Amino acid sequence: MKLLKEKIRQDALILDNSIIKVDSFLNHQMDIHLFNEMGKTFRDYFGWGVQKIVTCEASGIGIATIVAQYFGCDVVFAKKEASSLTDDNFHTAPVYSYTKQKESLFRIDKRFINEGDQILIIDDFLANGEALSGMISLVEQAKAQVMGIGVAIEKGFQNGGQMIRERGYNLKSLVIIDEIQNNKLIFRE
Amino acid sequence: MKLLKEKIRQDALILDNSIIKVDSFLNHQMDIHLFNEMGKTFRDYFGWGVQKIVTCEASGIGIATIVAQYFGCDVVFAKKEASSLTDDNFHTAPVYSYTKQKESLFRIDKRFINEGDQILIIDDFLANGEALSGMISLVEQAKAQVMGIGVAIEKGFQNGGQMIRERGYNLKSLVIIDEIQNNKLIFRE
Repeated sequence: MKLLKEKIRQDALILDNSIIKVDSFLNHQMDIHLFNEMGKTFRDYFGWGVQKIVTCEASGIGIATIVAQYFGCDVVFAKKEASSLTDDNFHTAPVYSYTKQKESLFRIDKRFINEGDQILIIDDFLANGEALSGMISLVEQAKAQVMGIGVAIEKGFQNGGQMIRERGYNLKSLVIIDEIQNNKLIFRE
Repeated sequence: MKLLKEKIRQDALILDNSIIKVDSFLNHQMDIHLFNEMGKTFRDYFGWGVQKIVTCEASGIGIATIVAQYFGCDVVFAKKEASSLTDDNFHTAPVYSYTKQKESLFRIDKRFINEGDQILIIDDFLANGEALSGMISLVEQAKAQVMGIGVAIEKGFQNGGQMIRERGYNLKSLVIIDEIQNNKLIFRE
């Protein structure tokens, strides 16, 4: 996606040749015009039939709500709990965060995903795929269908994207960064 | 706001005569059509001139992003950190949560609120006003101006709304619940 690439080129900060900071437009301050363009791109790619969008707190929520407008559907976001206490009313999945170096528990109330629902999963970043795997698990525990997975930025030099595609999911990353060389980003064409 | 009141009457769960659960449309599953109607109502009330919306993670983010479309502006959300470590790059404010019975630290990168910015603060719930006070503090530390504060649901039987209004802020709550009697909600007219 051209606009997102331009935005990354202009505004992303690169730290230590491995960390890409996009907090000025994606996951702290949020560029609503850009999110709308992302919504159009996802709609063109995934087409119709999405009945609900699933995302996770916190930075997925803004993108997911704007994207939902292009599918005419609602959003449910997985809550991240520090505790590992399970509760029969929730689907739960343990998710390890490499950034925060700790495990948390994703949970969604069972009332909000129904058997057979056609679900689009949306998130801001894909690196190791831990968060996406957690969301896929929540959807499939509910016997709903993962119609597709839409991600703003995939770090192609980590293995999450490959792992998700090999599992057979229809994954669309708007931008894939394959490498960081001397603090310069190499995009996949 | 009529639609929000109807939605609350239909779908809210009332627990122990004091807790109002609106997770089926406001803060877990999110009703995007409703959020758009909320956006229109806030725009009609606050008029033009809003340059940025400030909210806090997690459940404020969805509402804020949709509302931002009606003001043609971007959103920045305060992050909640468990630690009380301060960092010179951030405005910070300690916020006590009565629900979770613990204090967290709200923080916003100093790059994202500028002196003189006209800010609209948006949140889903107003009870004791702790979260709003934290966000007001962040905005005012940046020498920006709180143009207004928009809240979906105010619990009129707690003191946050009165406190915020007495401090002189232009607070608009879309619905105010004044009382819960025998598990029935009494709205302020």
